Amino acid sequence: MEKQYIKKDLVADWESLQRIFIRPEDDASRETLIKYMEQILFGLHDFLNKNVGVTEAISLKALTDLYKETVISPHPEKKLADVISDIIQGIAPRAVNVASPYFVGHMTAAIPFFMVHLKAIVAALNQNVIKLETSKVLSVLEKQVLAKIHRLIYKNSEIFYHTHVQSTDTTLGSFTTGGTTANLTALWVARNLLLKPFDRFQGVEAQGMAEALKAYSLDKAVILASPRGHFSLKKAGGILGIGHKNVIPVDVDAHHRVDVLKLNRRIVDLKKNGKIGIMAVVGIAGATETGIVDPLDAIADVCEDHGLHFHVDAAWGGPVMLSERYAFKLKGIERGDSVTIDGHKQFFMPMTCGMVYFRDPLAMDAIAYHANYVNREGSVDLGIKTLEGSREANSLILDSSLKIMGTRGYGLMVDHGIETAQGFSRAIHARELFEMVTEPELNILTYRILPPKIKEQILSASPGEKEKLEDRVNQLNIKVQREQREAGKSFVSRTRIRQGTKDTEGQVVLRAVIMNPMTDMDILNEVLDEQEEIAKKILQSPEPF
Amino acid sequence: MEKQYIKKDLVADWESLQRIFIRPEDDASRETLIKYMEQILFGLHDFLNKNVGVTEAISLKALTDLYKETVISPHPEKKLADVISDIIQGIAPRAVNVASPYFVGHMTAAIPFFMVHLKAIVAALNQNVIKLETSKVLSVLEKQVLAKIHRLIYKNSEIFYHTHVQSTDTTLGSFTTGGTTANLTALWVARNLLLKPFDRFQGVEAQGMAEALKAYSLDKAVILASPRGHFSLKKAGGILGIGHKNVIPVDVDAHHRVDVLKLNRRIVDLKKNGKIGIMAVVGIAGATETGIVDPLDAIADVCEDHGLHFHVDAAWGGPVMLSERYAFKLKGIERGDSVTIDGHKQFFMPMTCGMVYFRDPLAMDAIAYHANYVNREGSVDLGIKTLEGSREANSLILDSSLKIMGTRGYGLMVDHGIETAQGFSRAIHARELFEMVTEPELNILTYRILPPKIKEQILSASPGEKEKLEDRVNQLNIKVQREQREAGKSFVSRTRIRQGTKDTEGQVVLRAVIMNPMTDMDILNEVLDEQEEIAKKILQSPEPF
Repeated sequence: MEKQYIKKDLVADWESLQRIFIRPEDDASRETLIKYMEQILFGLHDFLNKNVGVTEAISLKALTDLYKETVISPHPEKKLADVISDIIQGIAPRAVNVASPYFVGHMTAAIPFFMVHLKAIVAALNQNVIKLETSKVLSVLEKQVLAKIHRLIYKNSEIFYHTHVQSTDTTLGSFTTGGTTANLTALWVARNLLLKPFDRFQGVEAQGMAEALKAYSLDKAVILASPRGHFSLKKAGGILGIGHKNVIPVDVDAHHRVDVLKLNRRIVDLKKNGKIGIMAVVGIAGATETGIVDPLDAIADVCEDHGLHFHVDAAWGGPVMLSERYAFKLKGIERGDSVTIDGHKQFFMPMTCGMVYFRDPLAMDAIAYHANYVNREGSVDLGIKTLEGSREANSLILDSSLKIMGTRGYGLMVDHGIETAQGFSRAIHARELFEMVTEPELNILTYRILPPKIKEQILSASPGEKEKLEDRVNQLNIKVQREQREAGKSFVSRTRIRQGTKDTEGQVVLRAVIMNPMTDMDILNEVLDEQEEIAKKILQSPEPF
Repeated sequence: MEKQYIKKDLVADWESLQRIFIRPEDDASRETLIKYMEQILFGLHDFLNKNVGVTEAISLKALTDLYKETVISPHPEKKLADVISDIIQGIAPRAVNVASPYFVGHMTAAIPFFMVHLKAIVAALNQNVIKLETSKVLSVLEKQVLAKIHRLIYKNSEIFYHTHVQSTDTTLGSFTTGGTTANLTALWVARNLLLKPFDRFQGVEAQGMAEALKAYSLDKAVILASPRGHFSLKKAGGILGIGHKNVIPVDVDAHHRVDVLKLNRRIVDLKKNGKIGIMAVVGIAGATETGIVDPLDAIADVCEDHGLHFHVDAAWGGPVMLSERYAFKLKGIERGDSVTIDGHKQFFMPMTCGMVYFRDPLAMDAIAYHANYVNREGSVDLGIKTLEGSREANSLILDSSLKIMGTRGYGLMVDHGIETAQGFSRAIHARELFEMVTEPELNILTYRILPPKIKEQILSASPGEKEKLEDRVNQLNIKVQREQREAGKSFVSRTRIRQGTKDTEGQVVLRAVIMNPMTDMDILNEVLDEQEEIAKKILQSPEPF
């Protein structure tokens, strides 16, 4: 398959190499590149709709069979223009059109066209913000952007920001490569603050978890988090050496929010034990599966009472702060000792950008590292207190976008998402084939197909029968979601929602994430129509499902 | 400063927001964008030389004063075209021209112009390879590219790669966001393999370090690594809960390479203790400061004898495998249980891309996580066994570049770097004002300015005098490097080289990294001329230095 492309006239030699380093091989190549780059840069959404995800269904097996060659050609295989053409004609049609307003199952959505321009500029400058030497003004800009977002969250005084915005002694936060590493960074800091150096003990970072627990006379350290939290929290527990079993799910109420009274009781019990250190309590602002927001203010009260680190995972929900109408939903976020926010989610930035913020400008000192050739103490080098090493200048993208759209522009997108999700919920309630499972507190909702006949049967069924019926409903929803996805026109995702902290399989639900500003009720009704159609076809089919 | 730009006529409303999401506000904006994007995409290196890092010296203080405003405007501050113009005219001139062939102090260098095209395409597609649902063919392609590079390293059989390239049960490696997270991933796997589940112990990942050491009757776990290793190794020790003090520097020889006999003795001693678990031994292929390569084959022998995990940090040196002339220098890399290679270093990709590979296709099972809404067991979702969550499709960039340049194209760049560094070394030897410190095993070398008069004095000085003289030489080198950097025409970096594992301050050296294919001996002689000139001026000045 690949072989046919091998051009015998393409030879890697020093001269042609130097040429291709700086410009296209020939005018034909240049023309091809111009054509595509113009489409991408100035007609992005038309381009995506025309070129991406348009291939007829191909089975995964058939697709993987096309990508099995593992030998790299010693000589150039293709001219640049052919490589780009192959991407547009061969790869793009089999990618996923995450930008389609009919694809409402992802947290990856359409991005404004100018984001591609900004990303290209960042790539062209190719600065490495790990150190001032390879970034200069971009390091300075990053500190400014961090302060701007910190101010959005914490709303401290002008003098506070004036003091810290460019201070080399303090750190308001850090860009990361995503929510996972942002959460990991926050919990890394929390671990190091709990098990910090004293007397002759040099701290957990230097001496490790076992020595640290010994020094503090503890059996273990734990993190308390909602069972609806992102799986990166458990992963962080595993990575940090506290053990993912010690990321303890706390009780949630019927709305899947942390039950604060039970949280408090749990903390009291753990403290009574005397041998368990509580590293952090995590509240969620926009849970991945349901979009719900934990009662942040109340959790903050509990954490304050007990002197615990309060981490807010607002990877998804963070930008709701920019909405004049709905910012109140995040009340209490400003009391988080650390806050995660993703850039590539509701800041509409391209992959991959996360951020983590700390209320205390000295908190990140707990994870400072130095290396001679990288950075010297007291330098402005941003690599001293970050998980990641080399990093691109993503702050330039966020800063530019904030200038282009203003907080109000972002706020309007948030409003659109939340209000369209509310409309979607009403549309679901109005159809008898559907059942709402979790209402959209933000712009995420879950629902399921529940034929009225089966619903009735469930109501009057014995526990054993009920389980069987629920299982049938689960299978139905799985089938509908799969068929809709495979048809390729629209997409909602699918997950399982458990009640409480129970470790059961849970109910299969369809999950919609309304973040694309082009998604409206007409489109969403089409999505539901298609689901109804598929479901009815399945229900009428003589085959069991 | 920022205020003057606020355009009162820019208002965030839903209509204008939807418009700016998909295209420039007006024709004038479009024109501006086209002008700049054309320069960036088709005249990258001219553009960089003309626009980047061209501002006269500005003190860091003066620069930071320009970036202190921390309030985000509610309404759009600027039109898109103005934002882009500001970046080109205001930010770029104060960034660092990492692409200049005179800037030979970074590991961040010029990238081929087409990398910017590829990055723009990746941003436009905005796939998230954490899961098949948001990436489809890009997940499949990533597995193929991982297999291609795995094959470069490990050279297993055709049937091995046929079996694993698209297998959903096995994993040959992972893209990461850089060498730091690649090293962290490798050591995370090594930790979990050492302290794996048995009987009723569920493994370190689940139960944490303290329980794990108890279960294995150990006092601590350690990593043995060259003291010339990257600081991310220590950081990994800290993050993983083993403690960075337990990343133990092993002895090196006079050439800064791991002393294998002493390594072996160290391991024997540690094992005799009986209470210390050795998690991994780390060999470096291209040390950050000196470019040296540890005796990988011999270290592999030792690790094999003792049954230890051997990690090779080839973040820098990895692509030397592509050189027909110098691949031999990495002999033994194929015996690494895990190998780190950076994409944004000698694969000439834009920030940020790292990779980690594992010899055993089942090794990464040790770090597998599952989440209902993300991935189901046995799926092809790439997010199951990675440190990072969301990730962009960087494999598309590497794959394309390999097709455009071939392994031989990359090999020629490697050859150029190494041979130019050798030429640079000869030029340094030929000048009496300079002293070579570490010869270029690959394309990195360190040297220093050592005036012949002072050199003679050092030879005949008492220990106390000697120290004072060495300190003077250090100060001279610091001054020269700083003045050259501030003059802005060329750049070498500066670090300190210690002898052995001693925790002394070490000798100040100038460090050159020759990776830009445009850097040649004429340029390097100019760099040395400039250093001589600055040094002589300092030496002749009546002021002490």
